[in-house]
Amino acid sequence: MKYGIVAFPSKKLQDLANTYRKRYDSHYTKITPHITLKEAFEADESEIGKISDTIEKIASNFEPLKIHATKVSSFFPTTNVIYFKIEQTEQLTNLYEELKSQINLGQPKHVFAPHITIAQDITASEHDDIFGQLRMIGVNEHDTIDRIHLLYQLEDGSWTTFETYRLTGDEN
Amino acid sequence: MKYGIVAFPSKKLQDLANTYRKRYDSHYTKITPHITLKEAFEADESEIGKISDTIEKIASNFEPLKIHATKVSSFFPTTNVIYFKIEQTEQLTNLYEELKSQINLGQPKHVFAPHITIAQDITASEHDDIFGQLRMIGVNEHDTIDRIHLLYQLEDGSWTTFETYRLTGDEN
Repeated sequence: MKYGIVAFPSKKLQDLANTYRKRYDSHYTKITPHITLKEAFEADESEIGKISDTIEKIASNFEPLKIHATKVSSFFPTTNVIYFKIEQTEQLTNLYEELKSQINLGQPKHVFAPHITIAQDITASEHDDIFGQLRMIGVNEHDTIDRIHLLYQLEDGSWTTFETYRLTGDEN
Repeated sequence: MKYGIVAFPSKKLQDLANTYRKRYDSHYTKITPHITLKEAFEADESEIGKISDTIEKIASNFEPLKIHATKVSSFFPTTNVIYFKIEQTEQLTNLYEELKSQINLGQPKHVFAPHITIAQDITASEHDDIFGQLRMIGVNEHDTIDRIHLLYQLEDGSWTTFETYRLTGDEN
Protein backbone atom coordinates (compact mmCIF):
# COMPACT_ATOMS: atom_id res chain seq x y z
CA MET A 1 0.00 0.00 0.00
CA LYS A 2 1.20 3.54 -0.67
CA TYR A 3 1.49 5.93 2.27
CA GLY A 4 2.52 9.56 2.69
CA ILE A 5 2.90 12.06 5.54
CA VAL A 6 1.51 15.58 5.26
CA ALA A 7 0.58 18.66 7.25
CA PHE A 8 -2.73 20.33 6.38
CA PRO A 9 -2.62 24.11 6.89
CA SER A 10 -5.60 26.06 8.28
CA LYS A 11 -8.94 25.99 6.48
CA LYS A 12 -8.27 29.59 5.40
CA LEU A 13 -5.01 28.68 3.65
CA GLN A 14 -6.52 25.50 2.16
CA ASP A 15 -9.44 27.52 0.76
CA LEU A 16 -7.02 30.04 -0.74
CA ALA A 17 -4.90 27.31 -2.36
CA ASN A 18 -8.06 25.66 -3.74
CA THR A 19 -9.09 28.81 -5.61
CA TYR A 20 -6.05 28.10 -7.83
CA ARG A 21 -5.90 24.30 -7.58
CA LYS A 22 -9.45 23.91 -8.86
CA ARG A 23 -8.29 25.38 -12.18
CA TYR A 24 -4.64 24.38 -12.42
CA ASP A 25 -3.87 21.31 -10.29
CA SER A 26 -4.50 17.83 -11.71
CA HIS A 27 -4.48 16.45 -8.13
CA TYR A 28 -7.14 18.89 -6.93
CA THR A 29 -9.77 16.19 -6.42
CA LYS A 30 -7.39 13.61 -4.93
CA ILE A 31 -6.33 15.38 -1.74
CA THR A 32 -6.97 18.68 0.03
CA PRO A 33 -4.15 21.31 0.08
CA HIS A 34 -1.14 20.17 2.10
CA ILE A 35 2.57 20.39 2.82
CA THR A 36 4.25 17.06 2.06
CA LEU A 37 6.56 15.96 4.87
CA LYS A 38 7.31 12.53 3.46
CA GLU A 39 6.70 11.66 -0.17
CA ALA A 40 4.65 8.60 -1.10
CA PHE A 41 6.33 5.37 0.03
CA GLU A 42 5.37 1.71 -0.21
CA ALA A 43 4.78 -0.17 3.03
CA ASP A 44 3.15 -3.41 3.92
CA GLU A 45 -0.06 -3.21 5.96
CA SER A 46 1.65 -5.39 8.56
CA GLU A 47 4.42 -2.78 9.04
CA ILE A 48 2.17 0.24 9.32
CA GLY A 49 1.45 -0.11 13.03
CA LYS A 50 5.16 0.18 13.80
CA ILE A 51 5.60 3.07 11.36
CA SER A 52 2.64 4.83 12.96
CA ASP A 53 4.21 4.43 16.41
CA THR A 54 7.44 5.95 15.07
CA ILE A 55 5.60 8.98 13.68
CA GLU A 56 3.72 9.41 16.94
CA LYS A 57 6.98 9.47 18.88
CA ILE A 58 8.52 12.00 16.49
CA ALA A 59 5.41 14.22 16.54
CA SER A 60 5.40 14.23 20.34
CA ASN A 61 8.83 15.95 20.27
CA PHE A 62 7.78 18.92 18.16
CA GLU A 63 5.90 22.10 18.93
CA PRO A 64 3.08 23.09 16.55
CA LEU A 65 4.63 24.19 13.24
CA LYS A 66 4.82 27.90 12.66
CA ILE A 67 4.63 28.36 8.92
CA HIS A 68 4.81 31.39 6.65
CA ALA A 69 3.66 31.17 3.02
CA THR A 70 5.81 33.94 1.58
CA LYS A 71 5.39 33.89 -2.20
CA VAL A 72 4.24 32.03 -5.28
CA SER A 73 7.17 30.13 -6.73
CA SER A 74 7.86 27.41 -9.32
CA PHE A 75 9.99 24.28 -9.64
CA PHE A 76 10.46 25.01 -13.37
CA PRO A 77 12.47 23.72 -15.23
CA THR A 78 12.69 20.59 -13.03
CA THR A 79 8.89 20.23 -13.13
CA ASN A 80 6.05 22.55 -14.14
CA VAL A 81 4.83 22.79 -10.56
CA ILE A 82 3.72 26.15 -9.15
CA TYR A 83 3.37 26.48 -5.39
CA PHE A 84 3.07 28.62 -2.30
CA LYS A 85 6.61 28.69 -0.96
CA ILE A 86 6.73 27.93 2.78
CA GLU A 87 9.64 29.61 4.47
CA GLN A 88 12.26 27.05 5.42
CA THR A 89 12.65 26.85 9.19
CA GLU A 90 14.88 24.74 11.38
CA GLN A 91 11.77 23.18 12.89
CA LEU A 92 10.40 22.07 9.49
CA THR A 93 13.80 20.75 8.39
CA ASN A 94 14.26 18.85 11.63
CA LEU A 95 10.81 17.29 11.43
CA TYR A 96 11.42 16.30 7.79
CA GLU A 97 14.84 14.81 8.60
CA GLU A 98 13.52 12.87 11.59
CA LEU A 99 10.74 11.33 9.50
CA LYS A 100 13.18 10.53 6.68
CA SER A 101 15.80 8.88 8.85
CA GLN A 102 13.47 7.00 11.20
CA ILE A 103 11.13 5.74 8.47
CA ASN A 104 13.75 4.46 6.12
CA LEU A 105 11.36 3.63 3.24
CA GLY A 106 11.32 5.26 -0.19
CA GLN A 107 13.92 7.69 -1.45
CA PRO A 108 13.06 11.40 -1.73
CA LYS A 109 13.10 12.54 -5.36
CA HIS A 110 14.02 16.11 -4.44
CA VAL A 111 15.65 18.04 -1.62
CA PHE A 112 13.14 19.25 0.95
CA ALA A 113 11.58 22.55 -0.10
CA PRO A 114 8.40 22.99 1.95
CA HIS A 115 5.50 24.10 -0.23
CA ILE A 116 1.79 23.89 -1.01
CA THR A 117 1.26 22.92 -4.65
CA ILE A 118 -1.29 25.05 -6.51
CA ALA A 119 -0.63 23.98 -10.14
CA GLN A 120 0.78 20.85 -11.79
CA ASP A 121 0.56 18.79 -14.99
CA ILE A 122 0.33 21.94 -17.08
CA THR A 123 2.16 22.62 -20.34
CA ALA A 124 5.24 24.86 -20.49
CA SER A 125 3.27 27.72 -22.02
CA GLU A 126 0.44 27.35 -19.49
CA HIS A 127 3.09 27.38 -16.81
CA ASP A 128 4.53 30.65 -18.04
CA ASP A 129 1.09 32.30 -18.28
CA ILE A 130 -0.15 31.10 -14.90
CA PHE A 131 3.10 31.68 -13.06
CA GLY A 132 3.33 35.19 -14.49
CA GLN A 133 -0.12 36.01 -13.12
CA LEU A 134 0.09 34.28 -9.75
CA ARG A 135 3.57 35.53 -8.93
CA MET A 136 2.23 39.07 -9.09
CA ILE A 137 -0.77 38.28 -6.88
CA GLY A 138 1.58 36.54 -4.46
CA VAL A 139 0.74 35.18 -1.01
CA ASN A 140 1.62 36.20 2.54
CA GLU A 141 -0.01 34.00 5.16
CA HIS A 142 1.13 33.01 8.63
CA ASP A 143 -0.27 29.84 10.12
CA THR A 144 0.20 27.40 12.98
CA ILE A 145 -0.25 23.67 12.33
CA ASP A 146 -0.70 21.57 15.45
CA ARG A 147 -0.87 18.09 13.89
CA ILE A 148 0.40 15.94 11.03
CA HIS A 149 -1.31 13.09 9.17
CA LEU A 150 -0.39 9.69 7.78
CA LEU A 151 -2.41 9.02 4.62
CA TYR A 152 -2.82 6.03 2.31
CA GLN A 153 -3.66 6.06 -1.36
CA LEU A 154 -6.64 4.36 -3.01
CA GLU A 155 -6.48 2.80 -6.47
CA ASP A 156 -8.00 5.90 -8.08
CA GLY A 157 -5.19 8.09 -6.70
CA SER A 158 -7.19 9.71 -3.89
CA TRP A 159 -5.90 9.76 -0.29
CA THR A 160 -7.61 8.72 2.95
CA THR A 161 -6.29 9.62 6.41
CA PHE A 162 -4.97 6.66 8.38
CA GLU A 163 -3.93 8.49 11.53
CA THR A 164 -3.45 11.96 13.03
CA TYR A 165 -0.53 12.92 15.30
CA ARG A 166 -0.59 15.95 17.57
CA LEU A 167 2.58 18.03 17.79
CA THR A 168 2.84 18.25 21.56
CA GLY A 169 6.58 18.64 22.24
CA ASP A 170 8.90 21.58 22.66
CA GLU A 171 11.19 21.37 19.62
CA ASN A 172 10.75 24.61 17.72
CA MET B 1 -17.09 25.66 10.37
CA LYS B 2 -18.85 22.49 9.23
CA TYR B 3 -17.78 19.20 10.79
CA GLY B 4 -18.78 15.57 10.37
CA ILE B 5 -17.86 12.19 11.88
CA VAL B 6 -17.22 9.17 9.66
CA ALA B 7 -15.71 5.68 9.59
CA PHE B 8 -13.61 4.81 6.56
CA PRO B 9 -13.82 1.12 5.66
CA SER B 10 -10.80 -0.86 4.43
CA LYS B 11 -8.96 0.20 1.29
CA LYS B 12 -10.50 -2.81 -0.46
CA LEU B 13 -14.06 -1.71 0.27
CA GLN B 14 -13.25 1.94 -0.54
CA ASP B 15 -11.78 0.85 -3.90
CA LEU B 16 -14.89 -1.21 -4.65
CA ALA B 17 -17.23 1.69 -3.78
CA ASN B 18 -15.14 4.04 -5.93
CA THR B 19 -15.63 1.91 -9.04
CA TYR B 20 -19.28 3.02 -8.86
CA ARG B 21 -18.85 6.44 -7.24
CA LYS B 22 -16.56 7.64 -9.99
CA ARG B 23 -19.45 7.32 -12.41
CA TYR B 24 -22.53 7.95 -10.30
CA ASP B 25 -21.70 9.96 -7.17
CA SER B 26 -21.54 13.76 -7.36
CA HIS B 27 -19.49 13.78 -4.12
CA TYR B 28 -16.90 11.36 -5.49
CA THR B 29 -14.12 13.98 -5.54
CA LYS B 30 -15.04 15.59 -2.21
CA ILE B 31 -14.40 12.70 0.17
CA THR B 32 -13.28 9.07 0.00
CA PRO B 33 -15.90 6.30 0.62
CA HIS B 34 -17.20 6.32 4.19
CA ILE B 35 -19.95 5.46 6.65
CA THR B 36 -21.40 8.65 8.16
CA LEU B 37 -21.70 8.41 11.95
CA LYS B 38 -22.73 12.01 12.49
CA GLU B 39 -24.06 14.19 9.69
CA ALA B 40 -22.51 17.57 8.97
CA PHE B 41 -22.96 19.99 11.88
CA GLU B 42 -21.88 23.57 12.50
CA ALA B 43 -19.45 24.22 15.31
CA ASP B 44 -17.25 27.09 16.27
CA GLU B 45 -13.48 26.53 16.04
CA SER B 46 -13.29 27.44 19.71
CA GLU B 47 -15.64 24.56 20.65
CA ILE B 48 -13.94 21.89 18.59
CA GLY B 49 -11.31 20.98 21.17
CA LYS B 50 -14.02 20.04 23.63
CA ILE B 51 -16.02 18.17 20.97
CA SER B 52 -12.88 16.28 19.99
CA ASP B 53 -12.29 15.25 23.61
CA THR B 54 -15.87 13.96 23.78
CA ILE B 55 -15.41 11.86 20.64
CA GLU B 56 -12.13 10.50 21.98
CA LYS B 57 -13.83 9.40 25.20
CA ILE B 58 -16.68 7.73 23.29
CA ALA B 59 -14.28 5.99 20.87
CA SER B 60 -12.26 4.63 23.76
CA ASN B 61 -15.34 2.70 24.94
CA PHE B 62 -15.92 0.79 21.70
CA GLU B 63 -14.29 -2.24 20.16
CA PRO B 64 -13.31 -1.99 16.48
CA LEU B 65 -16.49 -2.00 14.39
CA LYS B 66 -17.38 -5.26 12.72
CA ILE B 67 -19.28 -4.34 9.59
CA HIS B 68 -20.97 -6.35 6.88
CA ALA B 69 -21.93 -4.75 3.56
CA THR B 70 -24.81 -7.01 2.62
CA LYS B 71 -26.49 -5.58 -0.47
CA VAL B 72 -26.97 -2.65 -2.80
CA SER B 73 -29.98 -0.67 -1.65
CA SER B 74 -31.66 2.70 -2.30
CA PHE B 75 -33.28 5.49 -0.30
CA PHE B 76 -35.74 6.10 -3.15
CA PRO B 77 -38.30 7.74 -3.03
CA THR B 78 -36.95 9.84 -0.11
CA THR B 79 -33.79 10.62 -2.10
CA ASN B 80 -32.20 9.14 -5.22
CA VAL B 81 -29.27 7.76 -3.23
CA ILE B 82 -27.96 4.26 -3.94
CA TYR B 83 -25.69 2.66 -1.36
CA PHE B 84 -24.01 -0.41 0.08
CA LYS B 85 -26.26 -1.33 2.98
CA ILE B 86 -24.28 -1.96 6.16
CA GLU B 87 -26.00 -4.43 8.43
CA GLN B 88 -27.40 -2.69 11.48
CA THR B 89 -25.68 -3.89 14.65
CA GLU B 90 -26.14 -2.95 18.27
CA GLN B 91 -22.55 -1.70 18.30
CA LEU B 92 -23.12 0.69 15.36
CA THR B 93 -26.40 1.93 16.81
CA ASN B 94 -24.84 2.50 20.22
CA LEU B 95 -21.89 4.39 18.77
CA TYR B 96 -24.24 6.52 16.66
CA GLU B 97 -26.50 7.27 19.65
CA GLU B 98 -23.59 8.13 21.92
CA LEU B 99 -22.23 10.61 19.37
CA LYS B 100 -25.69 12.08 18.81
CA SER B 101 -26.54 12.56 22.47
CA GLN B 102 -23.12 13.72 23.69
CA ILE B 103 -22.49 16.12 20.79
CA ASN B 104 -25.80 17.86 20.84
CA LEU B 105 -25.27 19.92 17.67
CA GLY B 106 -27.23 19.63 14.43
CA GLN B 107 -30.34 17.56 14.00
CA PRO B 108 -30.18 14.32 12.01
CA LYS B 109 -32.27 14.54 8.84
CA HIS B 110 -32.96 10.81 8.77
CA VAL B 111 -33.02 7.84 11.11
CA PHE B 112 -29.67 6.05 11.30
CA ALA B 113 -29.30 3.54 8.47
CA PRO B 114 -25.58 2.74 8.20
CA HIS B 115 -24.44 2.79 4.57
CA ILE B 116 -21.74 3.68 2.07
CA THR B 117 -23.15 5.92 -0.67
CA ILE B 118 -22.24 4.87 -4.21
CA ALA B 119 -24.61 7.08 -6.26
CA GLN B 120 -26.35 10.43 -5.65
CA ASP B 121 -27.63 13.51 -7.47
CA ILE B 122 -28.92 11.36 -10.31
CA THR B 123 -32.25 11.69 -12.08
CA ALA B 124 -35.17 9.35 -11.34
CA SER B 125 -34.66 7.44 -14.58
CA GLU B 126 -30.88 7.17 -14.03
CA HIS B 127 -31.68 5.92 -10.55
CA ASP B 128 -33.90 3.17 -11.91
CA ASP B 129 -31.33 2.09 -14.51
CA ILE B 130 -28.34 2.13 -12.17
CA PHE B 131 -30.15 0.58 -9.22
CA GLY B 132 -31.48 -2.19 -11.46
CA GLN B 133 -27.96 -3.07 -12.54
CA LEU B 134 -26.13 -2.68 -9.23
CA ARG B 135 -28.75 -4.51 -7.19
CA MET B 136 -28.10 -7.58 -9.30
CA ILE B 137 -24.32 -7.33 -8.94
CA GLY B 138 -24.79 -6.83 -5.19
CA VAL B 139 -22.09 -6.71 -2.52
CA ASN B 140 -21.03 -9.00 0.30
CA GLU B 141 -18.03 -7.73 2.21
CA HIS B 142 -17.00 -8.17 5.84
CA ASP B 143 -14.68 -5.60 7.35
CA THR B 144 -13.28 -4.40 10.66
CA ILE B 145 -12.83 -0.67 11.24
CA ASP B 146 -10.57 0.23 14.14
CA ARG B 147 -10.88 4.04 14.10
CA ILE B 148 -13.25 6.91 13.36
CA HIS B 149 -12.51 10.40 12.03
CA LEU B 150 -13.65 13.95 12.67
CA LEU B 151 -13.56 15.91 9.39
CA TYR B 152 -14.15 19.54 8.47
CA GLN B 153 -15.42 20.91 5.21
CA LEU B 154 -13.63 23.40 2.96
CA GLU B 155 -15.45 26.07 0.95
CA ASP B 156 -15.39 23.92 -2.21
CA GLY B 157 -17.22 21.09 -0.42
CA SER B 158 -14.22 18.80 0.08
CA TRP B 159 -13.37 17.34 3.51
CA THR B 160 -10.09 17.35 5.44
CA THR B 161 -9.44 15.14 8.48
CA PHE B 162 -9.17 17.03 11.75
CA GLU B 163 -8.55 14.10 14.07
CA THR B 164 -8.53 10.30 14.24
CA TYR B 165 -9.85 8.30 17.19
CA ARG B 166 -8.92 4.67 17.82
CA LEU B 167 -11.66 2.32 18.95
CA THR B 168 -9.89 0.75 21.90
CA GLY B 169 -12.68 -0.26 24.29
CA ASP B 170 -14.72 -3.40 24.79
CA GLU B 171 -18.24 -2.37 23.77
CA ASN B 172 -19.24 -4.65 20.92
